[in-house]
Amino acid sequence: MTAPRLTPLAASLPSTVPFVGPETHERQTGVAFAARMGANENVFGPSPKAVAAMRDALTGVWTYADPENHDLRAALARKHGVAPENIMVGEGIDGLLGVLARLMVAPGTPVVVSQGGYPTFNFHVAGFGGKMHAVPFTDDDREDGFALMDKARETGAPLVYLANPDNPMGTWWSAEQIGEMIARLPEDTVLCLDEAYIDFAPEGTEPPIDVSDARVVRMRTFSKAYGMAGMRVGYAIGHERLISAFDKVRNHFGMNKLGQIAALAALEDGEWLAGIVRKVRKSCDEIARVARQCGLAPIPTATNFVAIDTGGDGALARRVVEEMGKRGVFIRMAFAAPQNRCIRVSAGREEDLELFARALPEALAAARG
Amino acid sequence: MTAPRLTPLAASLPSTVPFVGPETHERQTGVAFAARMGANENVFGPSPKAVAAMRDALTGVWTYADPENHDLRAALARKHGVAPENIMVGEGIDGLLGVLARLMVAPGTPVVVSQGGYPTFNFHVAGFGGKMHAVPFTDDDREDGFALMDKARETGAPLVYLANPDNPMGTWWSAEQIGEMIARLPEDTVLCLDEAYIDFAPEGTEPPIDVSDARVVRMRTFSKAYGMAGMRVGYAIGHERLISAFDKVRNHFGMNKLGQIAALAALEDGEWLAGIVRKVRKSCDEIARVARQCGLAPIPTATNFVAIDTGGDGALARRVVEEMGKRGVFIRMAFAAPQNRCIRVSAGREEDLELFARALPEALAAARG
Repeated sequence: MTAPRLTPLAASLPSTVPFVGPETHERQTGVAFAARMGANENVFGPSPKAVAAMRDALTGVWTYADPENHDLRAALARKHGVAPENIMVGEGIDGLLGVLARLMVAPGTPVVVSQGGYPTFNFHVAGFGGKMHAVPFTDDDREDGFALMDKARETGAPLVYLANPDNPMGTWWSAEQIGEMIARLPEDTVLCLDEAYIDFAPEGTEPPIDVSDARVVRMRTFSKAYGMAGMRVGYAIGHERLISAFDKVRNHFGMNKLGQIAALAALEDGEWLAGIVRKVRKSCDEIARVARQCGLAPIPTATNFVAIDTGGDGALARRVVEEMGKRGVFIRMAFAAPQNRCIRVSAGREEDLELFARALPEALAAARG
Repeated sequence: MTAPRLTPLAASLPSTVPFVGPETHERQTGVAFAARMGANENVFGPSPKAVAAMRDALTGVWTYADPENHDLRAALARKHGVAPENIMVGEGIDGLLGVLARLMVAPGTPVVVSQGGYPTFNFHVAGFGGKMHAVPFTDDDREDGFALMDKARETGAPLVYLANPDNPMGTWWSAEQIGEMIARLPEDTVLCLDEAYIDFAPEGTEPPIDVSDARVVRMRTFSKAYGMAGMRVGYAIGHERLISAFDKVRNHFGMNKLGQIAALAALEDGEWLAGIVRKVRKSCDEIARVARQCGLAPIPTATNFVAIDTGGDGALARRVVEEMGKRGVFIRMAFAAPQNRCIRVSAGREEDLELFARALPEALAAARG
């Protein structure tokens, strides 16, 4: 035997990545994308108050960040009407999903997800050896929350994942419907309710937060509406029993200090957030309009992106993505059939939208060959 | 059964933290420390070039960072004369140690460490259920590298940890001696050689980097000499076989963008780094002088901190730490007997040193009661 001796589980895993970054494509082609509309980022950027707070703190990055994230947790607790003990801050939702999987998934543990749902959750579950039970989307391209709950009961899964609104389709359930799903959740199952896009959703989408229910953990982020994907700040809201368990294994000094500071400042700028939501909605409307103009069917969205039905299959959508890339527009597509008939386009500025509108008909023609 | 159903391993772990942050103490007492000399941070701060690079990038944090860390890895590869495939960037050495433990440690896996060595490595190993085999320090307060290698052979451990220079004692072995230890390493054991403090060490401490040897992985950081603890940038250097394994499980989008950018800029400013090393050495000399003046024995250091023998036991050292805290000076102490007879004091600015010099004799008198 030679070094390194990986664990049997680690040895069995591929060296993979849930998403290939646009930078990788750019390096491969030698050309930078002119419009970055593929990663569901927020091109309108962070609040100027967050930027100013970071600027003031730059020379202070010689200290580690407070490992308890005390001030940020206190502010988030106030925002959500819960106690700081109900909040866990981490390196984006991705980081928190990894810790959650680590706490609840051992080799063979059944975990319930949607077929073609968020790949990074699946990556973490697979990384701890979990056995995925995937439920298809509904016919109207929503994660099938009711079927997910039934599958959790059927498989005895301790953990089930549901994004509302959903990525990659942008579809959603009402708060009331989510409440009905939660009512169907077995007593010993945790629902990871990923609400990364909730700030963009119509009123009535966000169910009340009830941290007395240890079966539900909510995931939120500063990467989307708050425009700070690069700062890596996410948080979980839940029962203290689950939230405190994160302290068992998390990288306590993993948070970067400027991210903490920026998030705290961003929370104070509700006006900026409201403006972002307006701009994003307008941009998504325009993306949908262009799609329809090209004869395609945009899926109604509660997020900062639009899934657009190409009218073909995954192979066609892939060619459209590639052809758009050749024209300088970075977009992505849905992850699995039948949703992967759709391309996925994130909200852009006016100049991004112009490029998109110019490229799409050409890309479609080329893709249809 | 009720939710959450943690894995048996997770359920067995305490909710703990390897280090309590100074902010927690400050919140408990309601008084901020006047001198922060306890966390081995670099009070002299980051290169102005790194600060400028971050300032220029603030409004661009709406994008995720490149998950491949391509540019930073390329620069680090050039610096160390290796290929980018030999470099893995992560959220500080702490984050990388967690991934390394995950790859190599399953419940019951033997892992060899020093009794009283870096607690965060132990935290990660325990978090994956590893069985720790701890080797005492040498009589002259060094991690006993030769005994560590022998213990690895005896226990069949796949993984052994050695910091050079060491935390918490600041002691070190020469490059030649480290080479002799590596020669003694079993063929199927990985040595995690943590060189967080290597930039402060005298010439001849850093063994040549040989990435053809899959048994050695070196850990480096921008948190110490580069003065950016708050930005969370560390990296591992090693054989491609081990480095590529990190991609199996790491949080690919875990790096923050400003950290990437700052690290890249900091690498260009060797002059600043050299100045930091000079200032830190002078500061450590002054800490040692003050200690001797108080009748205490400072341990020679190759780091940015000084371990000071209180002449008593762990209980005395703890009282000294507390009494220093009451006087506004945050310091820490060694982690386990017999090294925990020592307090640990990080390099400070002139104003920090003045506070330290004023507080130490008082704190000693109070601690001795």
